[in-house]
Amino acid sequence: MVTSTSLTETSPDELEQCARDATTAFEQWSALPARTRARALVGAADALVDAADELVAIAAAETGLTEVRLRGELRRTAVQLRLFADVVVEGDYLDVRVDLADPEFVLGPRADLRRTHVPIGPVLNFTASNFPFAFSVAGGDSASALAAGCSVIVKAHPGHPELSRRTGEIVRAALARRGAPADVLQVIFGQAAGVTLLGDPRVRAGAFTGSLRAGRLLADVAASRSDRIPFYGELGSVNPQFVTRARLADDATSLAEGYVASVSMSAGQFCTKPGFLFVPDVAAIASSIASAAALVAEHRMLNPHIAASYQRRREAVLECVGVDVIALGSLRVDGDGHGWTTPTIVSVSLAALESVGGPLLDECFGPLSVVVAYERESELPDVARRLFPGNLTGGVHALADESTPELAALVDVLARLSGRVLFNGWPTGVAVTPAMQHGGPWPATTSDAGTSVGTAAIQRFLRAVSYQNVPAHLLPPVLRDGESSVPRRVSPAGESTTWGARASADQPSQ
Amino acid sequence: MVTSTSLTETSPDELEQCARDATTAFEQWSALPARTRARALVGAADALVDAADELVAIAAAETGLTEVRLRGELRRTAVQLRLFADVVVEGDYLDVRVDLADPEFVLGPRADLRRTHVPIGPVLNFTASNFPFAFSVAGGDSASALAAGCSVIVKAHPGHPELSRRTGEIVRAALARRGAPADVLQVIFGQAAGVTLLGDPRVRAGAFTGSLRAGRLLADVAASRSDRIPFYGELGSVNPQFVTRARLADDATSLAEGYVASVSMSAGQFCTKPGFLFVPDVAAIASSIASAAALVAEHRMLNPHIAASYQRRREAVLECVGVDVIALGSLRVDGDGHGWTTPTIVSVSLAALESVGGPLLDECFGPLSVVVAYERESELPDVARRLFPGNLTGGVHALADESTPELAALVDVLARLSGRVLFNGWPTGVAVTPAMQHGGPWPATTSDAGTSVGTAAIQRFLRAVSYQNVPAHLLPPVLRDGESSVPRRVSPAGESTTWGARASADQPSQ
Repeated sequence: MVTSTSLTETSPDELEQCARDATTAFEQWSALPARTRARALVGAADALVDAADELVAIAAAETGLTEVRLRGELRRTAVQLRLFADVVVEGDYLDVRVDLADPEFVLGPRADLRRTHVPIGPVLNFTASNFPFAFSVAGGDSASALAAGCSVIVKAHPGHPELSRRTGEIVRAALARRGAPADVLQVIFGQAAGVTLLGDPRVRAGAFTGSLRAGRLLADVAASRSDRIPFYGELGSVNPQFVTRARLADDATSLAEGYVASVSMSAGQFCTKPGFLFVPDVAAIASSIASAAALVAEHRMLNPHIAASYQRRREAVLECVGVDVIALGSLRVDGDGHGWTTPTIVSVSLAALESVGGPLLDECFGPLSVVVAYERESELPDVARRLFPGNLTGGVHALADESTPELAALVDVLARLSGRVLFNGWPTGVAVTPAMQHGGPWPATTSDAGTSVGTAAIQRFLRAVSYQNVPAHLLPPVLRDGESSVPRRVSPAGESTTWGARASADQPSQ
Repeated sequence: MVTSTSLTETSPDELEQCARDATTAFEQWSALPARTRARALVGAADALVDAADELVAIAAAETGLTEVRLRGELRRTAVQLRLFADVVVEGDYLDVRVDLADPEFVLGPRADLRRTHVPIGPVLNFTASNFPFAFSVAGGDSASALAAGCSVIVKAHPGHPELSRRTGEIVRAALARRGAPADVLQVIFGQAAGVTLLGDPRVRAGAFTGSLRAGRLLADVAASRSDRIPFYGELGSVNPQFVTRARLADDATSLAEGYVASVSMSAGQFCTKPGFLFVPDVAAIASSIASAAALVAEHRMLNPHIAASYQRRREAVLECVGVDVIALGSLRVDGDGHGWTTPTIVSVSLAALESVGGPLLDECFGPLSVVVAYERESELPDVARRLFPGNLTGGVHALADESTPELAALVDVLARLSGRVLFNGWPTGVAVTPAMQHGGPWPATTSDAGTSVGTAAIQRFLRAVSYQNVPAHLLPPVLRDGESSVPRRVSPAGESTTWGARASADQPSQ
C-alpha cells in the first residue's frame, strides 16, 4: 500500500490492502540475506540524516519541541538504525544452538537438533507523541522489528501526522533503494484504523508507547483475539528517586539542578521524568530547587490535548491535602490553544503522600514533580515496595562510597520494581546500547519480558524454531555447518552423562 | 504452607497462606548463590531417582501408563533437573551485557550500564495429565522456574493426585536438605483454587500444559488481571507429517511402522502425536499400517474423562463423509470405567478433509490418526498454510538426498507454522537439550516466544534489569568486574562511532 497521501483516517479498503501488502512484504523481506537487510537499514539511517533540515522543521511546527532536541533525536534515530544493522549482521541475537547427534545420550539416542530464531510476521506499531522520531515511524519499535525480518505497519500519532507521512515516504524509498520490498514499512492514520488492524489475523505482534489507558485497551484487543498475539506496550512510569541523608548534606545544589533539569527538559514530557524525589529534609533543598526552576524558560507542550490533561493533573496535585509549593510554575494557553509551561515542584510528607494516594501517586505527564520528606532511610525499601509496584526506572542518590544495609536493600528493591536502576543519575536520556533495559513490571509495560530500547528490543519480534535431523541443503544457511559466521552454542555428544556434575563440583562460581 | 495432606480442593485460607509463603520463599530462594540453587536441584533429582519404585507404582495405578514408560519419564525428569542445575551454574542464561562508560559515545557521554536477568517472582504451574512426572510437580515448568530463582506453586492434576502429593513431599524435603526455603515448592489441589490463585497479585507468572479450552480460560484470567502477568500455556497440536512420493516408493513398510508406533505409544496421549500423515497414494501404505496397528496391544487411557472424550472424537471422525477405515481399532470400557484402546487409523482425500474441516481437523487426544491422500507435492506448502496455522511440530519424510523446490518450500512453511521441524522422524519423544523448541504459533501455545522443554525454558521466568553507574559494592555479584565466571558481552568505549560499518562492509556473512 502506498502511504496515505491524506492524513485522514485510513479507510477499511486501504487497511485490507495494507494487511495484504504487509504479508507479501514480510515473505520477501524475511527471505533476504541478513546483509541485505542490514544495508537497507543503514540506507534508511542515511536518508533520515540527509533529510534532517526538512524533517526537523516539520517536527518543530507539529510538536513544539526545540530544534536542538529534535536534531539530537533524529541523530539518535539514525544511530539506532545503524546499530540494529550491525546486530543483524553479527547474528548473535539468533541465539543459535546446535545439539550434535548423540548415541550416548542419557535418555536414549539423541537426534541432531539445531535451533534458531525467525521473525514473527507483520508487526503493528502504535507510535508516541513525545518522540516524533525515536518512538515514531522510524523509531526503536520499527527498527527492531525490521531488523528481526518483520514487515512493519506504523499507526501514526495524530500529534505529528505530516512528519509521520513524510518520514514514511523517505524511509520507504531509502529501504527500497537497498533492495527491500516496497511495503516493508507502511503508515496508517486513525485510532479506529489501528484497533481494526490489531485484530487482523495477518498482524502477528503489536507494539505501543503511550498512555496507560490506550495501552491497556490495545493490549486487551491483542489478548482477546481468537489467535492471541504478543503485544508490547510501554505505558506509564513515575521513576522515583531516593536521596540519602549523606548525599543531601554533601551538595544539595547540584542535586537540585540535576533534578529540575530532568523534570523540565522538553516540558517534562518523558516517560522517564522523575516524578518523585525522596529527601530526608525538604528545607535543605527547597530553595535550590526553586532557584533552578526559576531559570527554566517557558516550553510549549506537544499538543492542546496533552496541555489540557496536564492542567487537570497539576490542579489536582496542587489541591491535595498536605502539599506545599516549592516552585509554582506556570501554564499559559496561547491563541492556537497550545499550552506553555514552566516547572511546578511541590513537596509533601511521606505520611501525606500515603494518605492521599492516587491523585498524588499517579503519573503526571508534564513538568511537575513531587519532593517527599522521609524520616528514616531504613523505611525506604518498604516505601518503594508499597508505592511503586512497577516503573521503567528507579534511582538512588548517595555518596560514591556509601555502604549501608539500607542503601543495599533499596537498590535491591528498585531492581525488583523497575527495569533500570540509576546511581547518582537522572533517568531521562535513555542510551541506545546493548545493555539498555527500557521496560518494567506493570504498569510500566504490558510485558515485562521485553525492552523497547537497546539491541535486546529485537527479541520481541522473534520466535524460535528447531530443526531435527534436517539435511544441510534443507536447513536455513545460518544452521548449516561451515556456512555462517553467526556464533553458535554447540552441545557435543556425550555431555549429558555429566549433567549436574558442574553444579555439584566444589569450585567457586558467580 | 505444608502440602495439603488431603487431596480435596485447597481451601481459601490455605491459598492465602500459600501465596504468602511463596512470596517469602521467593525472597529467600532468589537471594541464594547460584551454586546453592543448583545443588538443591541436583538433590531433588537424586531424591526422585531414590524414590522411583514407590513413585512409579503410584503413577502406574493412577494413570494406567506402563512401568517402562514411567521409569523412563522419571529418569527424564531427574535429568532435566540436573541439566537446569548446570544452566544455573554456567549463567549464560542471564545474557549479561556490560556497556563500558564511553565519553566518545556518538550521542553524548555514555554511562556505565550493566544488564542481567532476575527471576520474575512466584510462579503458578498447572500440570498435565499425560506426563505425571515430566510435566507435573517436578517437571519442566517447575524445574525451569526454580532454576530461574522463582518459587513455584503447582496446581496438581486431578488425574494423579496422590502422586502429586507424594512427589511434592519428596522434592520439598530434598530441596530443603540442600538449603532451599521450605516453601519454594508448594502443591495445591482443585481447578477453582488454581483459578483463584492465578488472580492473586503475589503470583507473577503462570504456566500450563493441557487442553485448548482450559488453557484459553486461564490465559484470559492472567490477561484480564489489573496487573497483567505472563502466562505460558501449551495447548493443542496435530503435528502433520508429509511424505514425498519418492520416500513412499522407497519403503512404505518402515514408514508405516514408525507412524503407527508414534500414534499408539502411551495410547496416543501425547501433544506431539502425529495426527495427520499426507501421502500421495494411500493404497501403497494402507496394508502396512493395518498390519502394524494389528500388533499394538491394548492400552489403558489416563482416566475415564479422557476416554470419554476420545470416544466422542473417534465416533465423530468415523462418521465424517469421505472417511475410510484403515485400522478400526477398539475402545473397551472396563468395570472401573477405564477405557482401553488400540489404534484407529482412517484415510481421507485432501478434498474431503478440506470440505469437512473442524470435525476432522481438530486434535483427537488418543490413538487416532488420519492418512490424507494428496495429488501433487507442489500443493503441500499451501495445504499446510491453510489447514495447520500453529503446531508444536511438523514433519517431512523424504529421501536423504531429495532436493526439490517443493520440498524446500514445505520445510520453510513448516518452520513458519510450528516450533520444531523434523526430517524422517516422528515427533513423539522430545529431547531435553539446549536446542529443543517445544512451542509454536497459536493454538499450539499461548505465547510463541517460549519453549516449555529444553534449557531455553528458563527464559520464561526472567526479566531484565540494567544498572546505571552503580558502584561495584551495590551491584549483584554477577555484574561486578572480576568476581564472576558468568559469560558477558562487553561493549567497549568508542564502538558507537563504527555502528553501521559492519553492515556496509563487503565481506560475506551468513
